[in-house]
Amino acid sequence: MIAVVLAGGSGTRFWPLSRAARPKQLIRLYGEATLIAQTVQRLAGVTRAERVLVVCGEPLLAETREALPALGEANFIAEPFARNTAPAIGLAAVYALAAFGDEVMGIFPSDHYIEELQAFDACLIAASAEAERGAIVTMGITPTAPETGYGYIAYDAEAALGAGLGAGLGAGLGAGDHPAFPVQAFVEKPDREHAQAYLDAGNYVWNSGMFVFKPSVLLDEMARQRPAMHEAMMAIAQAIGTPDEQRVVRERFESVERVSIDYAIMEGARQVVVIPAAFRWSDVGHWAAIGDVTGTDANNNVVEADAALFEVTNSVIYSEGSKRVIAVAGVDNLVIVDTPDALLIIAKDRAQDVRALVDLLKAQGRDDVL
Amino acid sequence: MIAVVLAGGSGTRFWPLSRAARPKQLIRLYGEATLIAQTVQRLAGVTRAERVLVVCGEPLLAETREALPALGEANFIAEPFARNTAPAIGLAAVYALAAFGDEVMGIFPSDHYIEELQAFDACLIAASAEAERGAIVTMGITPTAPETGYGYIAYDAEAALGAGLGAGLGAGLGAGDHPAFPVQAFVEKPDREHAQAYLDAGNYVWNSGMFVFKPSVLLDEMARQRPAMHEAMMAIAQAIGTPDEQRVVRERFESVERVSIDYAIMEGARQVVVIPAAFRWSDVGHWAAIGDVTGTDANNNVVEADAALFEVTNSVIYSEGSKRVIAVAGVDNLVIVDTPDALLIIAKDRAQDVRALVDLLKAQGRDDVL
Repeated sequence: MIAVVLAGGSGTRFWPLSRAARPKQLIRLYGEATLIAQTVQRLAGVTRAERVLVVCGEPLLAETREALPALGEANFIAEPFARNTAPAIGLAAVYALAAFGDEVMGIFPSDHYIEELQAFDACLIAASAEAERGAIVTMGITPTAPETGYGYIAYDAEAALGAGLGAGLGAGLGAGDHPAFPVQAFVEKPDREHAQAYLDAGNYVWNSGMFVFKPSVLLDEMARQRPAMHEAMMAIAQAIGTPDEQRVVRERFESVERVSIDYAIMEGARQVVVIPAAFRWSDVGHWAAIGDVTGTDANNNVVEADAALFEVTNSVIYSEGSKRVIAVAGVDNLVIVDTPDALLIIAKDRAQDVRALVDLLKAQGRDDVL
Repeated sequence: MIAVVLAGGSGTRFWPLSRAARPKQLIRLYGEATLIAQTVQRLAGVTRAERVLVVCGEPLLAETREALPALGEANFIAEPFARNTAPAIGLAAVYALAAFGDEVMGIFPSDHYIEELQAFDACLIAASAEAERGAIVTMGITPTAPETGYGYIAYDAEAALGAGLGAGLGAGLGAGDHPAFPVQAFVEKPDREHAQAYLDAGNYVWNSGMFVFKPSVLLDEMARQRPAMHEAMMAIAQAIGTPDEQRVVRERFESVERVSIDYAIMEGARQVVVIPAAFRWSDVGHWAAIGDVTGTDANNNVVEADAALFEVTNSVIYSEGSKRVIAVAGVDNLVIVDTPDALLIIAKDRAQDVRALVDLLKAQGRDDVL
């Protein structure tokens, strides 16, 4: 499998730990390595390092390469402009075709949390088999709660595909236990009531943003649904390896439509299937979600700091590089993130409002801390 | 008047701005100067610099002198041991007697907030007149709310003393408008219900910790109520100006009773009166009280920091020396105090628990930040 790692994120949701010059995938949020390094390490079970393609923004190419010292120059594709996931994946597809031919490729966000690697590998092997047969495969996560922060995928539970097929390819890993189902609909982030209904219905999964397909299949769908984007990608494909390559990528990318792969391709694709996966997954979308990944102490606190706590519950206390003692008393549901030049204090249930604060600081001309 | 400024406090209630080596009176909590400098400046209307005596702990003598550059060596009395206010005031009384004879002296805590200096001066002039006649005069603050953080003084409102007396001494300052009343009782910090009853009764005032009396009167009361303490003070008085002075002060102070002036002398004194005073006063006892002194913004926040706030109400955001931006969102009733080596975050209605945090840090061996 060709593994494409999408590292174009410029998220502000983990400010002040993440910054414009150091987005979420490049920070050490939990564990020993940056999120992108964890993502690449995790792919070792399904591919080899030389078949990994990291797509990142040109301004962060050097920082991204530094975070992945085991990879070489050929592993990186720089986007000259941020144009969301559809053009990024199109670019990866034409580069993968040029380098490896029409081999199955998997798309992996660079900043998600995944555990239970055996199940992860088994799902990807099952997905590869479906993709070999011409399907666009989405990886769906079996929901464990009525989450309102994720998109959902509805599937036809009566029409399992490829249930027996995996047995030959990945018998030892149990790929046969991971059937694919035809997708009925992609559903945007729901409200609480709808999320509960999806959970109860049993044939809904979270959209993990991971996809598996042959480059040719993806590009065919692009030609049908987004012809202008397809035309740009074909022009780029023609230029690969020529002296014009960089100029053509730049020109074509600048004017390409800014759109997500879900909206541009997946929702309208003809042969799209989902494999419900049961490994532990989170997109770790904001500070309030950090406890799902790191675990919490007896008071449901996440403490990654030199801290003294007195009657503190359900809170996140996070420090990096500031070397200060953080003393907290009598608070509940608070997020505290301490860095040398910026301190964030936000109600945990308002963690999404980090964006509002970042906007406020931008308006105040405080780009030095953004 | 001899003005005695009590600067023995080692309070932790303003940690991390105040520290063991820099207690509250030595910090710049509001305004341009330290609290003790503001206290001394405030006395300019009732005395001259050479008649100010600052009583402070020996370990902080250098820091205290540094905060008061206009005063000289003769203005300072060092307590070799912290023994609460009764011995501190006794010591001041014997030194004042030796230096100035039996002149009326006023006792002033070094870390309180006072505004409306004309009323302050007028009350002190009225108090001096009562003290000249042999009374121990307490300064009571007319309460404006049912505060539970202050001690109260009940007085006999039917028995005004000296109403006409001030006219001669301080006519221009309206001393005649500040009659004294016999004290009926000193009352410890009450619960809410009692505080409201005192407010409604009309003959209760807050105990400001300011007293005015002749040294001889104070020492007579000490001889009657605390003979051992009086004996120690007499021994010190004998030693003043001799080569034994320092040794005697040290020896006598070490073994003297550790007790407050209220408990040791005031509550049992025979001729104790109170002058209800209407100037603005606060003991600024904890972080939650800071807004009473500095004022607040439209959202009832006190912001003394480089801060970006989004939907923040009733909070205190205070920074000193840390040069960091503090971004806060979605919180109410929170105190945030940021310093280079320690950060405090505490619920505003739990501001007294700063002490618990300081104890916790002490138990953790973190004296470096205390």
